[in-house]
Amino acid sequence: MLLEAVYHRPRLNWSYAYDYETIHLRLRAKKGDLTEVFAWAGDKYAWDTTKELIPMKLFTSDAMFDYWECESVPLYRRLKYGFLLQKGHERIWMTESDFQTERPANPNRLFEFPYINRGDVFTPPAWVKDAVFYQIFPERFANGDASLNPDNVQPWGGTPTPENFFGGDLQGVIDHLDHLTELGINGIYFTPIFAGTTNHKYDTEDYMKVDPHFGDVETLKKLVDACHERGIRVLLDAVFNHSGRTFAPFLDVLEHGENSRYKDWFHVREFPLQVVDNIPNYDAFSFEPHMPKLNTENPEVKEYLLKVAEYWIKEVGIDGWRLDVANEVDHGFWREFRKVVKSANPEAYILGEIWHESAPWLEGDKFDAVMNYPFTDAVLDFFVNSSLDAEGFANAIGKQLSRYPLQASEVAFNLLDSHDTPRLLTLAGGDKKKFKQAVLFQFTFMGTPCIYYGDEFGMDGENDPGCRKCMEWDPEKQDHDLFSFYRKLIEIRGNHPALRSGSFTFLEAGRDGSKLAFERSLGDEVIIVLMNTEETAQTFRLDVEERDWQDLFTGDSLRAERGKLTIKLPAYGYTAVKAIL
Amino acid sequence: MLLEAVYHRPRLNWSYAYDYETIHLRLRAKKGDLTEVFAWAGDKYAWDTTKELIPMKLFTSDAMFDYWECESVPLYRRLKYGFLLQKGHERIWMTESDFQTERPANPNRLFEFPYINRGDVFTPPAWVKDAVFYQIFPERFANGDASLNPDNVQPWGGTPTPENFFGGDLQGVIDHLDHLTELGINGIYFTPIFAGTTNHKYDTEDYMKVDPHFGDVETLKKLVDACHERGIRVLLDAVFNHSGRTFAPFLDVLEHGENSRYKDWFHVREFPLQVVDNIPNYDAFSFEPHMPKLNTENPEVKEYLLKVAEYWIKEVGIDGWRLDVANEVDHGFWREFRKVVKSANPEAYILGEIWHESAPWLEGDKFDAVMNYPFTDAVLDFFVNSSLDAEGFANAIGKQLSRYPLQASEVAFNLLDSHDTPRLLTLAGGDKKKFKQAVLFQFTFMGTPCIYYGDEFGMDGENDPGCRKCMEWDPEKQDHDLFSFYRKLIEIRGNHPALRSGSFTFLEAGRDGSKLAFERSLGDEVIIVLMNTEETAQTFRLDVEERDWQDLFTGDSLRAERGKLTIKLPAYGYTAVKAIL
Repeated sequence: MLLEAVYHRPRLNWSYAYDYETIHLRLRAKKGDLTEVFAWAGDKYAWDTTKELIPMKLFTSDAMFDYWECESVPLYRRLKYGFLLQKGHERIWMTESDFQTERPANPNRLFEFPYINRGDVFTPPAWVKDAVFYQIFPERFANGDASLNPDNVQPWGGTPTPENFFGGDLQGVIDHLDHLTELGINGIYFTPIFAGTTNHKYDTEDYMKVDPHFGDVETLKKLVDACHERGIRVLLDAVFNHSGRTFAPFLDVLEHGENSRYKDWFHVREFPLQVVDNIPNYDAFSFEPHMPKLNTENPEVKEYLLKVAEYWIKEVGIDGWRLDVANEVDHGFWREFRKVVKSANPEAYILGEIWHESAPWLEGDKFDAVMNYPFTDAVLDFFVNSSLDAEGFANAIGKQLSRYPLQASEVAFNLLDSHDTPRLLTLAGGDKKKFKQAVLFQFTFMGTPCIYYGDEFGMDGENDPGCRKCMEWDPEKQDHDLFSFYRKLIEIRGNHPALRSGSFTFLEAGRDGSKLAFERSLGDEVIIVLMNTEETAQTFRLDVEERDWQDLFTGDSLRAERGKLTIKLPAYGYTAVKAIL
Repeated sequence: MLLEAVYHRPRLNWSYAYDYETIHLRLRAKKGDLTEVFAWAGDKYAWDTTKELIPMKLFTSDAMFDYWECESVPLYRRLKYGFLLQKGHERIWMTESDFQTERPANPNRLFEFPYINRGDVFTPPAWVKDAVFYQIFPERFANGDASLNPDNVQPWGGTPTPENFFGGDLQGVIDHLDHLTELGINGIYFTPIFAGTTNHKYDTEDYMKVDPHFGDVETLKKLVDACHERGIRVLLDAVFNHSGRTFAPFLDVLEHGENSRYKDWFHVREFPLQVVDNIPNYDAFSFEPHMPKLNTENPEVKEYLLKVAEYWIKEVGIDGWRLDVANEVDHGFWREFRKVVKSANPEAYILGEIWHESAPWLEGDKFDAVMNYPFTDAVLDFFVNSSLDAEGFANAIGKQLSRYPLQASEVAFNLLDSHDTPRLLTLAGGDKKKFKQAVLFQFTFMGTPCIYYGDEFGMDGENDPGCRKCMEWDPEKQDHDLFSFYRKLIEIRGNHPALRSGSFTFLEAGRDGSKLAFERSLGDEVIIVLMNTEETAQTFRLDVEERDWQDLFTGDSLRAERGKLTIKLPAYGYTAVKAIL
């Protein structure tokens, strides 16, 4: 046994309440090293009469490690526990302080899960598992009210630059809700819509006002109501890390310096404010002088921003917030933010923008989910760049699953591109076969998929400004095959709870491999997704139960014979099959 | 390189702000495996111009692992970072997603420390590092006001039982403050003093009232004021996990069941309340029917208890709270508790009772410290039980230091016994030589020592009720040698900042060894403590700078020759020497 590889800590993804009744315990070991693992658990105040060995199962792996997991539903919501590690006949007991060959005689030095308190349980809104999001960059989606056009508006469909405007607005979204309904999505994430000077509005001028080029509070209400009638939830973008240069308090500090009553609303290193060698002498997003960092620890700022958060939920009925540059804002602020938001709407969804590992924000006191860019990286590395083989991809996904409690993985916001990245089709070099496989994985994996506006019509584009082109509304220029593909995936996902709430297991993902197969399963519902990422046809032979299977794309029946399901897929072929009961 | 042993995670003890300027990064590796380790760090928005290799130093080890550490003071309070691991000429780079042989080309997949926000920095009160606590169990310390005696009070010094009373009270403490001043302590932790039916008062009847057998609010004020005049801070015991059976809201629930307006103040599984087979049908501390668990998530309960917490700080001026069964109360409650307490007194000390690993409570949003029982275990295992050799002891202490951020280790509440354990002298089988060595380590290690009342006079006693005997006030029966020993240690600790705030390094702690030497160092002040835990004399030869040293106990001078300090210690001998500048 390689004990140096064994890891457990009574916190985060390793030991957590999945719900008010259930504790999940996880243990890491060297890949392939252990043959059996047990949790040795009982009530800490009644150890002798309650202790038991709970078998753990291998729930995921990465390149170096296996991750074992079990659940326990302790009658009194509390546990003492250790682990029993087995490699063939070799047995080692693990306590909080040590590894030992003897069974721990008393529970004093074991790990502890002290008590499940309801409010500490991380509980994302249940609807998020069933959501399919669609991201809209409002200035570029549709121009529905020409009277609101900015000066110098460019003709729709022109070349985007970091500065120019095309007149997209909220009425434009209202006008095209039929498109979204036809596509089948049931959630929209809008990048910022509040008053700001730029086309992206990440430089807020007034948090309490819809940008006049986009509409007003009445248009927004109309939009949100229209979405709700269609069963579509609405997420707005909260840019609370920094304001824009024209935010009144910042203008005041620029003008009055140390004498401004807002001087503590920002992080000013010295007065008067200035920018030397492109570095402002106040904290900013990156080094961007036009985006001064807000002092979210200042009680006045906190009160103001929390009122903003509450106002748009109560006044307009939005269903949640996406939080810009969420990791740079203090944890204390987000804890209060969560209380305010959940008290305004207990079902509201809180989604943080964090690009790296985010466990500290996914413990139940801050966010419900983060934008899952590590997922994006893994999918692109395998399906698009081929820098990972199937095994490497399974390892990257496995590592990702190991890092978070299950409820976080179940609602991870899984995106393949956004206003901050090149578009997927561009990354795929225009190769629709690769594009489709990446999207198929996105829609059949654990977590909530999000479509970046226009991807469904085959829009392309490099990083900003290329990825922020005007939405293609000319049917002649839309890719209807991709649109149908997305529709079909959304339909399949909608019809199969296993794809939204089921377990996830790789069935085939070999070294140097280009064949990928995985299973999603919930109760009796078992679905297997298969993809051939090779330029030549390949045949899958999967060990399955002896039963009939149905192809979810064609409706064809297949039969497993002698415990094997044999499926030949053409170059870049894919399918998904469902066990027939 | 054994990469399976390498661990880092951007959280907890691995990556934290030590203060508003400084980030500490730590990395774990197999013991003895790596020869050099660097952090590869820079500003995430100016990577190319700021990235640098920061050498890490081996700061502690345990049985299996080395722990490397470095600090960074990034100009803009944010970092992207990875690590460079070296074993001789072998070099491996570690990113958030992988190990690789090439230097990471761009920072995107590195770890991130997003931004140091002041309020997120874990900042225990500065005075705690300089404190020496003394724990008083009020019913057994001194009877200063016979008029308050409970009925059936036993003669002072009789045999304690779980139920009997001896009449100790607050006036008794006031009367003996000279003793504490002479001893030299500057903090008192009182077990509960609020109204309750038992002698230990962990069954609170009224949180707003001093137990009438102990005194009243005026006596308490007099006591706190008298302490403050002597530079002694006062900590009270907050028993918020559960109340006593006679707490009015619980009596109401007992009487009115489901119709009680307090029915949600507790965790009742079914009405009416009853106890079947010794198991109450409501949650309790352990299964103790007389200690019903409070529902600290109920806003009314929360408001009540937070008012209690604030009241005694504001009304009486106490300097902090010790929190009973702190790990079973919800994290949300403790976060609000911290805000209330620190806003009433920013210098208040919050000390949790947690017996196991406590990192989740030591992140800055809950406690300042916990009762450090893992420290107790290690000290007893080595100095008292001899179940660890010197190397095993160093490993246990090293593991402990690796688990927490430095500021938590600096104020850890290091105790050797308490009202919940046998007394140290009893554990040592009456062996004062072992006793003294354990205490010497306690007073020269990192963290805040606490003396359990009477230990300074050589009191003994098994677990409760034995450890809760009446304080020995008869000079004939007091161990004056031990008293002088404690006084001397407190004096030495008080005179040497290195013992309170300095770094800690083992110099000698060999396999099968019984010689222990370690260094505390702060700026120019260097102190070496040496202990021989063997029944025969042993000679230490320590590599040190060529300089003179002074024995802190005898004042004698010693000279290091040829880079070696040679000190012969008799059986169970000890000393501490200080470098002369």
